[in-house]
Amino acid sequence: MPQNTSPHVAVIGLGAMGLPMATHLAGAFPVTGFDIAQARRDLLVAAGGGQAGTPAEAAAAADVALLAVRDHEQASAALFGEGGVTSTLRPGGVVILTSTIGPDAARELHARLQATGHVLVDAPISGGPVRAGQGDLLIVVGAEDAALQQVRPVLDRLASTLTVVGPRPGDGQALKTINQLLAGVHIAAAAEAVALARGLGLDPAVVVGTLAQGAAGSFMLGDRGPRMLQAYTDEPAEVKSRIDIFVKDMGIVTGVGREAHVPLPLAAAAQQLYLIAEANGLGAQDDSTVVTVLSPATRP
Amino acid sequence: MPQNTSPHVAVIGLGAMGLPMATHLAGAFPVTGFDIAQARRDLLVAAGGGQAGTPAEAAAAADVALLAVRDHEQASAALFGEGGVTSTLRPGGVVILTSTIGPDAARELHARLQATGHVLVDAPISGGPVRAGQGDLLIVVGAEDAALQQVRPVLDRLASTLTVVGPRPGDGQALKTINQLLAGVHIAAAAEAVALARGLGLDPAVVVGTLAQGAAGSFMLGDRGPRMLQAYTDEPAEVKSRIDIFVKDMGIVTGVGREAHVPLPLAAAAQQLYLIAEANGLGAQDDSTVVTVLSPATRP
Repeated sequence: MPQNTSPHVAVIGLGAMGLPMATHLAGAFPVTGFDIAQARRDLLVAAGGGQAGTPAEAAAAADVALLAVRDHEQASAALFGEGGVTSTLRPGGVVILTSTIGPDAARELHARLQATGHVLVDAPISGGPVRAGQGDLLIVVGAEDAALQQVRPVLDRLASTLTVVGPRPGDGQALKTINQLLAGVHIAAAAEAVALARGLGLDPAVVVGTLAQGAAGSFMLGDRGPRMLQAYTDEPAEVKSRIDIFVKDMGIVTGVGREAHVPLPLAAAAQQLYLIAEANGLGAQDDSTVVTVLSPATRP
Repeated sequence: MPQNTSPHVAVIGLGAMGLPMATHLAGAFPVTGFDIAQARRDLLVAAGGGQAGTPAEAAAAADVALLAVRDHEQASAALFGEGGVTSTLRPGGVVILTSTIGPDAARELHARLQATGHVLVDAPISGGPVRAGQGDLLIVVGAEDAALQQVRPVLDRLASTLTVVGPRPGDGQALKTINQLLAGVHIAAAAEAVALARGLGLDPAVVVGTLAQGAAGSFMLGDRGPRMLQAYTDEPAEVKSRIDIFVKDMGIVTGVGREAHVPLPLAAAAQQLYLIAEANGLGAQDDSTVVTVLSPATRP
């Protein structure tokens, strides 16, 4: 299709990232959203978008279907299951995959979409819900240039930084996987630092404040460190990104490492830490609360 | 003693950090240095300092003895062994401990120095050799205010940032231990990111450049990441900080965690990674070369 400066976009999945993306897109393009939860669809309608009862219905009039679902299984079902996107999306229509599902899974979807006459643009996102609603995301793309150009207006509406990693679907996922490796390890390292500060009788706020700017600093220490301290107050941190997201993503990281035969001992340790947190009932809590499995609020 | 604005300083240990500190101090104070290696003493003399054949001889005319040795064992020997500092340092003279040896070891030295009529200021340093020679170090102090004031001119000459953590010797070591936990984990995480990028066929320079500024960023990714890439060229990175320093420091980190009953799974994984690197003959190499045990230059 020729580059369409006002494409009709179907957004599949109106969760923590999907809803703010759909809402922000609706300020520039016709948008139809689908989510299993009617309440999420109502929120999009209130924000000026349209809604549909199935992915197929959402995609029927669309040029582009943007997937913002949780994982590979949900993506497969939304595209190829009963009432799936590919049953109605017009020939040559483009699917934008914003979810983090890993490179192999993205390539598998790409191959199946080629068979149905559609195109995949692998475009995993980073930045969180607030930035998603402001068009301020980091998007890393794996796609042929021709495919990318078709959806460039949509991605430009969502991204403040768009990096094209390579021409193959899966290349964006590969870089996002490395991003999640570092993010997940750095959050866990910040948790160890806060836990050790508490264990040694130091003021963890002073420790985080002193170390965040120096050679020990990381984005996550500066961002999650102060939220970890909230876990020891009566006002625990607002849930911005859930622990079970890192259970999923560190699973992708270590799986990708295993397939590529690259040892990742720290990522594996961080994965276990998120699993421990989830096993202790914290899956739906903010990822900063992982600190409490290392240093509970009340220590024995 | 009253605050002395031009104290005579004995510097014990003229290694990678001790020599540039002694040289920079010699621009402001009388300095006498000791090192086992005559060649290191000669370098200090060439830079305007004095030299001595034993720690005792160096400390004989000194108000302050600054220790820049490798570990607890060397510190004990330099202070209390044959020809040690305490045999000559005047009553009430202050020992500044700049080495990273852990809080318990610092408290042990403090107790022994109290028995010999001397004072310990726990003041571990960060910043590397170049900054050591420019008075641009980060120094974290554990000391009573009265003791600190006695050596404040010396520390101010060396530090661009001086943080007083608490009044007890060992408090500075505690914060430095947490600093090393984060630094050691972040270097290892950067190594995993570079290794995974190579394993997935991505350009690691693009990966480091893209991720260093975002949510996956850390000081170490920005600093050591590019030096890790040099490991795959004909010009490996200059040795700025050796791998065996992190073998020592991650040993302190995990030991302190064990004593405090704080689980540190990532620090433990990083410790093993540095031990693997050392076991493979890399102990004296730059710490950025730890990446090569995850991803050798020539892969099978």
